[in-house]
Amino acid sequence: MTSEQLITSGRLKAFIAEALMKAGLPGPDAESVAALMTEADLQGSDGHGVSRLPQYVRRIKAGGFNVRPNIHVVREQAGTALLNGDNGMGHLVMKRAAEIAIAKARTTGIAWVSSQFSNHAGPASLYARMPLAHDMIGLYFAVGNANHLPPWGGLDMLLSTNPIAAAIPAGEENPIVLDMATTVAAYGKVKTKALRGETMPEGWMIDRQGRPLTDPKRADEGMLLPLGGMEAGYKGYGLAMIIGLLAGTLGGAAMGKDVIDFNHDDSSVTNTGQAIAAIDIAAFGDVAVFKASVDRLIRDFRGSNRMPGVDRIFVPGEHSAATRRARTRDGIPIAPALMRGLDQVADELQIAKLASSVA
Amino acid sequence: MTSEQLITSGRLKAFIAEALMKAGLPGPDAESVAALMTEADLQGSDGHGVSRLPQYVRRIKAGGFNVRPNIHVVREQAGTALLNGDNGMGHLVMKRAAEIAIAKARTTGIAWVSSQFSNHAGPASLYARMPLAHDMIGLYFAVGNANHLPPWGGLDMLLSTNPIAAAIPAGEENPIVLDMATTVAAYGKVKTKALRGETMPEGWMIDRQGRPLTDPKRADEGMLLPLGGMEAGYKGYGLAMIIGLLAGTLGGAAMGKDVIDFNHDDSSVTNTGQAIAAIDIAAFGDVAVFKASVDRLIRDFRGSNRMPGVDRIFVPGEHSAATRRARTRDGIPIAPALMRGLDQVADELQIAKLASSVA
Repeated sequence: MTSEQLITSGRLKAFIAEALMKAGLPGPDAESVAALMTEADLQGSDGHGVSRLPQYVRRIKAGGFNVRPNIHVVREQAGTALLNGDNGMGHLVMKRAAEIAIAKARTTGIAWVSSQFSNHAGPASLYARMPLAHDMIGLYFAVGNANHLPPWGGLDMLLSTNPIAAAIPAGEENPIVLDMATTVAAYGKVKTKALRGETMPEGWMIDRQGRPLTDPKRADEGMLLPLGGMEAGYKGYGLAMIIGLLAGTLGGAAMGKDVIDFNHDDSSVTNTGQAIAAIDIAAFGDVAVFKASVDRLIRDFRGSNRMPGVDRIFVPGEHSAATRRARTRDGIPIAPALMRGLDQVADELQIAKLASSVA
Repeated sequence: MTSEQLITSGRLKAFIAEALMKAGLPGPDAESVAALMTEADLQGSDGHGVSRLPQYVRRIKAGGFNVRPNIHVVREQAGTALLNGDNGMGHLVMKRAAEIAIAKARTTGIAWVSSQFSNHAGPASLYARMPLAHDMIGLYFAVGNANHLPPWGGLDMLLSTNPIAAAIPAGEENPIVLDMATTVAAYGKVKTKALRGETMPEGWMIDRQGRPLTDPKRADEGMLLPLGGMEAGYKGYGLAMIIGLLAGTLGGAAMGKDVIDFNHDDSSVTNTGQAIAAIDIAAFGDVAVFKASVDRLIRDFRGSNRMPGVDRIFVPGEHSAATRRARTRDGIPIAPALMRGLDQVADELQIAKLASSVA
């Protein structure tokens, strides 16, 4: 009840896998999803890891996920594929999408795989990172699973926080990994604030009268501000729309008013769309030269002069890499409210609680 | 001296072409660049059209552009190419890059062409729009030609405003065209403010002590704020870095401290990098269905409820389409300071002035 508990990643992964399996997923699929959800928690994507488990289990029980999906390619060209997820869990769909993109990019230099009838897949960076091991750049675009953003100047929620992620390999340095919602704050961050009982800073959300909204428990009454805020939010709005068109409309997935709010609807087919691109660095030049250039760039940035009060200059992905190291060593912190929710999941599924002493 | 003069697009194009030819470009190349520069002015990209002509002419004279470039493919795969611009004008290089991307995407579904040894090519949207006529989506990324942005928390200018553009075809509606710098304001806008003798709003730039800078004539003393501003500028910073890696580093072009400030250096080879991607809509589904979906989305946005005081909801590209219609009809406004600069160019090259009555 009082403070965060630290859970090892091994225990967390086993708990998630057992829960998903008990809820109805085949063993290998449960293992795949659990591994990706745990990876999300390890890297600090707290709004997209185990905190989603209660909702996922509820959705499986309500028939909102197809637990035996026939994930299949609907159309393809040498450098593209349209992957129908058959309403399976998004993690499974986008893991497959990344594998296809990587295989295709090996021969064409670049490949793009769009999904349709997919579902929420966790943090965008999980999939953008997958090409890294193949000396490829990964780009990922997704339509978020609930609309919290109106068109610029509007009141109707027709857009989600539609995230973009990019992962670029380095040599000795950590890869550069950007993962950002096109709003000032991701909705997952709002949910995390609510779980922790904290208030939001001004500038994350406004209410329908345009006044700042800082109580995350009142999030349903407000809307997120697009990146750029009151000043240049039309840019974040434009990005959110383009990403939605690329990740949703292009693949025949939901976008705009067709988006299902999966936080309030456990059973409707969401027809979620995502897209992943893999770019083979070797198609453009020597991989070692490229990686050395990225290392040099990172070091130039890190070594540059700083504003008063700034201790260190970071590049995208350094915070998550540090979090991954710390949580691998110390465990993953689970907030009391989340632990109560997970205990309830364990009770319902009749499995051992997360913090129990089972291996 | 007193107010803006209106010039027809035909006259503007002829003037630019004559100036570039007199300065040393072969006729067909001068015509190509003039057409693209005029298109920039027609769509309202005032910082990237004829306002750049004095600088371009100066650069040609100083030997900073190769006026007889051998623009050639260095490497290619089925879906990719690396195009060496041989230090020719960027318009010529990126027009060629777009043509290659479109041709390749027709067979692979997606193609990506990176440039190296290119130069400033005008507004990003010019090239992102090129795939539209082929029922393709265009994406464009560029390393800007002067660093005005430090890493987040830093003071050294290691990044440019690195723009991103995306163009998506619609059916009956105008295409959706986003063209944005990853800073709150593009540097071209700062230059336009200076030309017009106007001040900048707070939030565009800060000085090295972090104080707002609003005098565009003092721009050299300050730095642009990345998209997101003081609140979430690390996102705009991350985007600028990723775009720079994609458009510059991937193709072996300049990025970071290697970027030449072409506003203050007329002769060094800039090794500018840009990248264009073309995505064939037919690779993912029926083109007519896609376009109808985009139309519906635009109309849903336009017809949605508005904040108090908002007359109309726009989607990206509507403003520039309206400007193109108005300027095609009424002419392109040339501010007095710019006209004086163009008159000087005309005198130096011994050609008729822009506003003279020649056809």
